[in-house]
Amino acid sequence: MRMYDIIEKKRNGKSLTKDEISFVIDGMIKKEIPDYQISSLIMAIYLNGMNDTETTYLTDSMAHSGDMINLEEMFGETVDKHSTGGVGDKTSLVICPIVASLGIKVAKMSGRGLGHTGGTIDKLESIPGFKVDLKEKDFVKQVEDIGISIISQTGNIAPADKKIYALRDTTATVSNIPLIASSIMSKKIAAGDKNILLDVKVGSGAFMKTKKEATELANKMVNIGKKLGKNISAILTNMDEPLGNYVGNSLEVIEAISILKGRGNPELKELCITLATNMVMLARGIKEANARKLVINSINSGKALEKFKEFIKYQHGNPDIVDDYKLLPISKYGYEVKANKTGYITKMNAEEIGKVANLLGAGRSTMEDTIDYGAGIIIESKVGNYVRKGKIIATLYTNKEDIDDIASKYLNAITISNYKPNKKKMILGKIK
Amino acid sequence: MRMYDIIEKKRNGKSLTKDEISFVIDGMIKKEIPDYQISSLIMAIYLNGMNDTETTYLTDSMAHSGDMINLEEMFGETVDKHSTGGVGDKTSLVICPIVASLGIKVAKMSGRGLGHTGGTIDKLESIPGFKVDLKEKDFVKQVEDIGISIISQTGNIAPADKKIYALRDTTATVSNIPLIASSIMSKKIAAGDKNILLDVKVGSGAFMKTKKEATELANKMVNIGKKLGKNISAILTNMDEPLGNYVGNSLEVIEAISILKGRGNPELKELCITLATNMVMLARGIKEANARKLVINSINSGKALEKFKEFIKYQHGNPDIVDDYKLLPISKYGYEVKANKTGYITKMNAEEIGKVANLLGAGRSTMEDTIDYGAGIIIESKVGNYVRKGKIIATLYTNKEDIDDIASKYLNAITISNYKPNKKKMILGKIK
Repeated sequence: MRMYDIIEKKRNGKSLTKDEISFVIDGMIKKEIPDYQISSLIMAIYLNGMNDTETTYLTDSMAHSGDMINLEEMFGETVDKHSTGGVGDKTSLVICPIVASLGIKVAKMSGRGLGHTGGTIDKLESIPGFKVDLKEKDFVKQVEDIGISIISQTGNIAPADKKIYALRDTTATVSNIPLIASSIMSKKIAAGDKNILLDVKVGSGAFMKTKKEATELANKMVNIGKKLGKNISAILTNMDEPLGNYVGNSLEVIEAISILKGRGNPELKELCITLATNMVMLARGIKEANARKLVINSINSGKALEKFKEFIKYQHGNPDIVDDYKLLPISKYGYEVKANKTGYITKMNAEEIGKVANLLGAGRSTMEDTIDYGAGIIIESKVGNYVRKGKIIATLYTNKEDIDDIASKYLNAITISNYKPNKKKMILGKIK
Repeated sequence: MRMYDIIEKKRNGKSLTKDEISFVIDGMIKKEIPDYQISSLIMAIYLNGMNDTETTYLTDSMAHSGDMINLEEMFGETVDKHSTGGVGDKTSLVICPIVASLGIKVAKMSGRGLGHTGGTIDKLESIPGFKVDLKEKDFVKQVEDIGISIISQTGNIAPADKKIYALRDTTATVSNIPLIASSIMSKKIAAGDKNILLDVKVGSGAFMKTKKEATELANKMVNIGKKLGKNISAILTNMDEPLGNYVGNSLEVIEAISILKGRGNPELKELCITLATNMVMLARGIKEANARKLVINSINSGKALEKFKEFIKYQHGNPDIVDDYKLLPISKYGYEVKANKTGYITKMNAEEIGKVANLLGAGRSTMEDTIDYGAGIIIESKVGNYVRKGKIIATLYTNKEDIDDIASKYLNAITISNYKPNKKKMILGKIK
C-alpha cells in the first residue's frame, strides 16, 4: 500500500477502505508518512468529503492510536456528556453531580479552555485547593467511593487526533463536519464510556452556526458512536447568546451552584435538567418522564448539591464555597457596562462575548497563557430584555486596569433595537 | 499576510492575488512556510483550479525564485523550443542545427531523461567526447562563435518549481494543467529566451492523453508566455506511437543525423521541418511559406548537417560520427522481436515502449541510475504496417542477457488486428 495512491483515490473523490485509513493513521504515528502527505490528504478529504463509513473507520483508527480505556469493565454503569463548546457552558458542573447522586457513575476526563470557549477543568481549578491531576488509582478509588470524579485529560488519548488536529489548525481544514465528528468521537471512544450524551451547540457562540450544520454533525457523531457499539444520543441546544448570566471560571462555579440549589437562570436550569435527564435515560434505559422526575428530585432534595460538595472535598477543594461564594477568587475591579441606547436587546454575539471574557483574563489564546480565575462577566440583560440608555447591562471583572477597549467590545457584541425579538428555544432538537 | 488565510481562500475556490502568490513562494524558499502548508495549498489548487492570471503570477514568482537569465541582452536574436516530453523525441538534435545554420542563435539549457521519456542531454552525451557541462564563459563564447550551444541545466533555475514539483510528485498532484503549465513556463521564463516554441505532445506516450487536454495546456502556456512578454506559440503533435524508428540515446543521434541528411522517417522529417519553420517564424517574424523554404534549403544544401558537426566539435565531441555511425556506442546484444500474429499494427503504446527502452538500459528510474548509451530499440514496423507472423518488427539493443521478459513487454505494447487503421496526422494543431 502506498500513501500516494491513497491521496490520489481521495483526490478523485473515491471512498477509502478501512485498511487504507489504518495505513494512514499507523504510518503517521510511526512517522513513516510525512506531514506534507497527511495535510494533502486532509485537504482532499475537506473538499471531496467522507461518508459515514469512512468517518467511522477514521474515528476508530484514531481512537486506537493511543490508550483505550474501558470504563464499563472498571465501574459498570457510567455515563459521559460531551459539549461541542460554547460560551458560559457550566452544565457539566451541574449535571455530573446530579447523575452521580442517582448512582450512575461519572468518571470523566475533561479539557481545558482554548479560544473563546471555557473548559470544565479550568472552572474546577478556580475552587481553592481543587486538584485536577489525580493519579489513576486515586481517580478509580474516588469513582468507586463517591461515584464521581472529573480530572484533566491524562495519558495518551487518541494521539493521532492531536496530530491531525494540529495540521488542520494550520491548513484551514478545521471546519469540516466529517473531520470534526471523527476528532470528537475518537477521544470519546478512547475514553471508554458505554453511554454518551452529546450536547451539540448551535448559533453565534458555537462552531456550528446553523441548525442544519449542527444536525449534520450530530447525526454523524451518533452514527459513528452506534457503529462503534456505543449507546449514544445528541441534543441540539441554542448558543446564540451566552449560556446563563455568568461567564468566567469562578463566576460559572457560582452559577452552577445556584442551579444545584434550585435557583438561577431558568433557561440554564432547563438545559441542565434536559441534559441530566437524557444521561439518565441512556444509562438506565428508562422513559423520559421518569428520568426527569429523578433529576428534579435530586435537585429539590438537595442530594445533587450534597454530591457536588462531596466531590469537591474528595478532590481536595474547599466545599464551603457552596455556602460562601466569597471563598472563591474574584478579580479586583468590577467595571459596569451601560446600555448606549434604549430598546430591546435583539442579539448578543456569544463568540465575541467569549473573547471579551478572555481579554478580561478568564481564558487563554495559547496553551501557555495563565488564567485569572476570578475574571469574567456577570450579564445583567440578555436577549429579549428591554433596557433604557444608561442602564447597567453587564459587569466586567478583571485584574486589568484601563479596559475601556474591552468594554466597548462588549457593547459592540450587543444589538439593541426598537422591536421585541422572538426568543429562540434552548432545546432545538434531539437525535438518537 | 498569513499562509493560513491563503489556503482558506483557495479552499473556498477564490482567486489568489499576485501578492499572495509571491508570499507563498518567497516563504517557501526562505523556509518560513512548512511543507505541510504548501502541500495543502497545492491540493486545494488541484481540486479548485487556478485561472490564467493566477497561473501567470505563480509562473513569474517561481521563475524569479532563482537566477534570471536574459539571452536577448547577451546574444540578441535567439530562439528556444520546449517539448512536453515523448518517446523517441530527437527533434532538438535536428532543428537546433537547422535554425542555427540560418543565423538564429540557439543558447539552450536542456534536461536529462527521467521516467519513460529521454533527455536531449543524455542523447548528446552518447557522442564520444561530447561535453554538456560547460563554464558560462565558454557557453557564451560558443554561441557567439558558431550560434549554437546546448548544455546541461546549471545554476539555480526556478528552485521554487523544483521544490513544488517534488511535493506534487509525492502527493498525487502532478496531473493538473495549471500546475504543469506554471512548472514548464517558470523554467522557460527564467532561461530567458524571447522567442519560445512549445511542442505539446498528445497521445499514449505523452503526459496529455487527449487533444482536449493538450489544447488546454498549450493555450495556458501560450497565454502565460504572452502575459510575461514572450513571443510564443505552440504546436500540438502526435505521440500515440514512438517518434520515428529509433529509441535510445546513440540510436536517436543516428536517426537525427539521417534527417539532417535529408533522409529518414518521413513523419519525423515533417515534424522537424514544421518545428524549425515555426522557430524561424517566431525569431524572424516572417511568413510560414518563406520560413519553410529556408528550413528545407538548410537541410538540402547540407548547411544544417555542417552546423551539427561544428556544434559537436566545439563541445569536444567527435564529429566523424556523422559519417561513421560505428563510432557511436552500441550495446552488445541485438534481440529480434517477431510478430506473434499476422495483421495490421493498429496501436503502439508509446509509454510502454519508452519503459522497454529504459529496461534495456537506455533510461533511468531515479536520477542516480547510470545509462547505457548504446541501448535502445530499432522499430521496424509501425502503426499501419502489415506484418506476417514471425516477421522481425523490432530489434532491442542491450548489454543485458536474458531479456525475454522485456521482449514480451514490447510485444504486449503492440496491437495487431485484422483491419487497416486510420493513421493519425503528426501535426494536430497550432496555438499562437
